[in-house]
Amino acid sequence: MKPEPLSYDTAPPASQAVIDDIKQTRKVEDVNDFWKYLANDPVTMKRTWESVKEVMQPGALDVLTKEMLYLAVSITNSCTYCIASHSAAAAKAGMSKEMFGELVAVVGMANETNRLVTAYRVPVDKAFGG
Amino acid sequence: MKPEPLSYDTAPPASQAVIDDIKQTRKVEDVNDFWKYLANDPVTMKRTWESVKEVMQPGALDVLTKEMLYLAVSITNSCTYCIASHSAAAAKAGMSKEMFGELVAVVGMANETNRLVTAYRVPVDKAFGG
Amino acid sequence: MKPEPLSYDTAPPASQAVIDDIKQTRKVEDVNDFWKYLANDPVTMKRTWESVKEVMQPGALDVLTKEMLYLAVSITNSCTYCIASHSAAAAKAGMSKEMFGELVAVVGMANETNRLVTAYRVPVDKAFGG
Amino acid sequence: MKPEPLSYDTAPPASQAVIDDIKQTRKVEDVNDFWKYLANDPVTMKRTWESVKEVMQPGALDVLTKEMLYLAVSITNSCTYCIASHSAAAAKAGMSKEMFGELVAVVGMANETNRLVTAYRVPVDKAFGG
Amino acid sequence: MKPEPLSYDTAPPASQAVIDDIKQTRKVEDVNDFWKYLANDPVTMKRTWESVKEVMQPGALDVLTKEMLYLAVSITNSCTYCIASHSAAAAKAGMSKEMFGELVAVVGMANETNRLVTAYRVPVDKAFGG
Amino acid sequence: MKPEPLSYDTAPPASQAVIDDIKQTRKVEDVNDFWKYLANDPVTMKRTWESVKEVMQPGALDVLTKEMLYLAVSITNSCTYCIASHSAAAAKAGMSKEMFGELVAVVGMANETNRLVTAYRVPVDKAFGG
Repeated sequence: MKPEPLSYDTAPPASQAVIDDIKQTRKVEDVNDFWKYLANDPVTMKRTWESVKEVMQPGALDVLTKEMLYLAVSITNSCTYCIASHSAAAAKAGMSKEMFGELVAVVGMANETNRLVTAYRVPVDKAFGG
Repeated sequence: MKPEPLSYDTAPPASQAVIDDIKQTRKVEDVNDFWKYLANDPVTMKRTWESVKEVMQPGALDVLTKEMLYLAVSITNSCTYCIASHSAAAAKAGMSKEMFGELVAVVGMANETNRLVTAYRVPVDKAFGG
Repeated sequence: MKPEPLSYDTAPPASQAVIDDIKQTRKVEDVNDFWKYLANDPVTMKRTWESVKEVMQPGALDVLTKEMLYLAVSITNSCTYCIASHSAAAAKAGMSKEMFGELVAVVGMANETNRLVTAYRVPVDKAFGG
Repeated sequence: MKPEPLSYDTAPPASQAVIDDIKQTRKVEDVNDFWKYLANDPVTMKRTWESVKEVMQPGALDVLTKEMLYLAVSITNSCTYCIASHSAAAAKAGMSKEMFGELVAVVGMANETNRLVTAYRVPVDKAFGG
Repeated sequence: MKPEPLSYDTAPPASQAVIDDIKQTRKVEDVNDFWKYLANDPVTMKRTWESVKEVMQPGALDVLTKEMLYLAVSITNSCTYCIASHSAAAAKAGMSKEMFGELVAVVGMANETNRLVTAYRVPVDKAFGG
Repeated sequence: MKPEPLSYDTAPPASQAVIDDIKQTRKVEDVNDFWKYLANDPVTMKRTWESVKEVMQPGALDVLTKEMLYLAVSITNSCTYCIASHSAAAAKAGMSKEMFGELVAVVGMANETNRLVTAYRVPVDKAFGG
């Protein structure tokens, strides 16, 4: 049972409709491979795309900030594909090489101090609701 | 061997010097409990503070963005103390309740799609260097 | 120090005995590559196999459910090898493509809501022992 | 910025509508505390509930299996609240004490062998698509 | 379904036998609470204790080194109980306060650089088998 | 935005200075690829190297123990590059094949019992500060 990507022609109609919407929304000629794999499961594909579209649209946070948050999570989870695709998306949204460098530094530092806090068993400060 | 927080008076001189610098840099009257625990190990405390100070200063990314990235990592790592302290720091730097809500939504979504990608074993797109 | 897989002939006798037992128990002609690497350490190999054999046998839960739980953990941990081998094992035990799709959807959703809970610092409900 | 739970009366109308739907769908008199916290963000609350409702309904997998998969992920992620609430949900769906015990054993074993695989750097078997 | 600890008198005979063996092996008057919870599942309790006993005995690595490795993993996994109990076990085996401080520093640093490596998508050096 | 490694000649002067110091400190003819990627960001590179140099020097713990702790964390985080490079570093510092085998066994066991503890929601023993 090795999942295989589906081309547009071999995808179920429900998945084709999602692909069409992604292309139109993002103004791209083709979708990322992630969606071609997810096309095997039209229900999950539709729900995921609608959620991503809602969550990633500009709101109280702009698109660049959202993409960088996505990238920070993906680095922490060691998701290589996600790092690659969201590095590209963040760059498209305006992330410079210097901003990427600082993002990585913050992510590294947060992962380090998270463990210092845990190791020393620090209870939450009263001022922060502890 | 349960680590205990050190008050300023009981901390080693090298740790007192770090506490002084934190207070002065952040313009606060007291430091967070994290530092009072870390005061047990002046070498790690000094290195950690100097790194945090360098990494978290405004640069290509502003302070608010950096605090939100820190928070996104801390949520992904389930570090309760870190979530509490960096929620507060991000709020101080300008994060509204709406921005917090969107940050959490992005972090949740990224954690979900990271697993979809992994489960479907999606290789990196050629366009992203795969 | 790069671990290399051992063929049956080059494995220590204690590892050969484990390989024999795996083949006989699972009624397979060869063992997965995991065991060929683990054959370098006969003590860990023997303990691991005996534990796996005990834990994965049908009991209050059937084999298919156990394999799907194994897969859910492996996806959450981003263990590519484990996803590949336990997808195959679950399929052999009866997991259909539709069941795989729903499993992945649940795993993704759980990873998302786990972070929402953590971000909002929700204490355990009294009804659940909080 | 410490999130606080909202009672039905203090929640925004859009969140009240979600609470109503949860109560009706699950046939319960009150919702879990998770939803009372999430009520602060009606957009995320609505999207999350609709996704949970879709993903957790019986399909190719029954409700009990889905709840156990959820629990397996929550244990792996150390989400105490999620373990508490989904242990209860799984028990309600039919998980016995013996089934819980075996689930925990599988989750523990999977977390162990995931690391053995990773430590030995085992490439995916050709038979599994490697 | 909230697991409750079992006292010796209320534990099943198979669990009592494990408790007896832990007390005798470790030369302690009572077992840690972990075992009192695990006593609910005699099969998992027996297997876990026998594995722990085998894995943690002195061999190519001494007991102190093994306890420190256990602690490093527990910090990385944010397992508060495990950090508490294995800090105590490591201290009993000879870990000084200074050694604990350096252990925490290494664990923090490793968690940081693990993310730098991942973020920069560094392939394994040829010299290391890449 | 795919990070590319920099050769010594193409690296910024600030990164060249770090490379020189690594070579001299470690008495090696070339640096690991990690540093060639990090050379893109001289500020993070300098801070990371100075931290690594301080943290990994012999102190209350010897170099071999520190490298093994690093390796234990890297296995738990599934950082393939880090496992490869720190297996090599630990071997250089004296880790035998038998020691590696026992390290892996402890790391696997700790990851298993961490989840058993979490699943049973075991509170910290009073004796350990709970």
